[in-house]
Amino acid sequence: MPRVHFHQQLAQLKDKLLAMAALSQQALETSVQAYLERDGQICEYVRENETAINMAQREVDEMSYELLAQEQPMAIDLRFILAVIKINGNLERIGDQSMSIAQRTLELLALPPVEVPADIAGMRDIARVMIRGALQALLEGDCQLAKTVIAMDDEIDRLNRETHERLSARIANQAAAAEQSLGGIIISRNLERIADHAANIAGDVIFWIEGADIRHQQLPALAKG
Amino acid sequence: MPRVHFHQQLAQLKDKLLAMAALSQQALETSVQAYLERDGQICEYVRENETAINMAQREVDEMSYELLAQEQPMAIDLRFILAVIKINGNLERIGDQSMSIAQRTLELLALPPVEVPADIAGMRDIARVMIRGALQALLEGDCQLAKTVIAMDDEIDRLNRETHERLSARIANQAAAAEQSLGGIIISRNLERIADHAANIAGDVIFWIEGADIRHQQLPALAKG
Repeated sequence: MPRVHFHQQLAQLKDKLLAMAALSQQALETSVQAYLERDGQICEYVRENETAINMAQREVDEMSYELLAQEQPMAIDLRFILAVIKINGNLERIGDQSMSIAQRTLELLALPPVEVPADIAGMRDIARVMIRGALQALLEGDCQLAKTVIAMDDEIDRLNRETHERLSARIANQAAAAEQSLGGIIISRNLERIADHAANIAGDVIFWIEGADIRHQQLPALAKG
Repeated sequence: MPRVHFHQQLAQLKDKLLAMAALSQQALETSVQAYLERDGQICEYVRENETAINMAQREVDEMSYELLAQEQPMAIDLRFILAVIKINGNLERIGDQSMSIAQRTLELLALPPVEVPADIAGMRDIARVMIRGALQALLEGDCQLAKTVIAMDDEIDRLNRETHERLSARIANQAAAAEQSLGGIIISRNLERIADHAANIAGDVIFWIEGADIRHQQLPALAKG
């Protein structure tokens, strides 16, 4: 197969991955909206979107596999395809975590509404910026941007820990709203995980561009919430 | 490079992956032990083990990448290497979830011990059997066993939901032990995720052997805890 055709196929693969990414971003937006607006209809939408994500994920994986099987990609192209496979997995897990937010929301809808002192919208905003940044880094081959995305992960970790502390103290003081506070804790964790996946995507971009695996270069600290 | 040498390298790759798997299994065992026995020393061990896991993961990824770059693997070998990359990722996330259990345990050690009605040991047992089964399926190329592992995931999902319901009701009735009950809920979720990763590994084994991607063949249900 001529090289030009191969590069067209790589461009197609990138387009498929971006379509997958759009669905994952949609999952984040709608699941948090469902929680904030207490809307069961939107939860149902998140579930339908998850079906689309799973189909899109399989398509990207299959196309990656075929390109690896049919071609003998050069090092940079090989790394690109491997990065696509990993990014695809991270996008799918963003969908999973969003489904978990929708599920928790459905359960909370059965309970009386209670004001929960957790900045879920703020955490969603950070996760959103991180996902967008990671995708932009992919599109533009921008390692510096990818590193900025990875650095942002600390902020959402901090917010998650704060949320955990605030809401668990509140549970101890105000047992009547325990389930609602617990919901806030769990959704905060889901958002922290979504941001983790965005940081992983940024790491995959760096692996593609630099050929370096930058994960785990520090001793892991026992600090995650 | 002669084909025989290539197959030796694939065997080496499998050995490296099994060494990685042993570390992940160790992470599960020790983190749950730390929780059950309230032992901060073991939490520290989990952290050191996590460093080893991260190094092992990188080695497996690098060797997979080199094999893909240097050889033109046949379809079945290509699928094997891709399966190794995916299994490796799932094993690493088992380590992550175990670190999260150790972290939660360290925080709980600061609080008075309270009997928490959650079958954490039982959930650990199921997760252990699932991981072992998935690895045995890999070693023996046994799709049937892999499918059995995937089916076991329902049981741990059910236990996780039960734990959530029991402990969140308890939080509402017994605010003094709220943080300890919350710890039980979160560790139960960590174990449910570990089992998910074991089921994913089994799916990766099936992809290798059958060339079929069996993930997401059903409409996802809004049922996860």
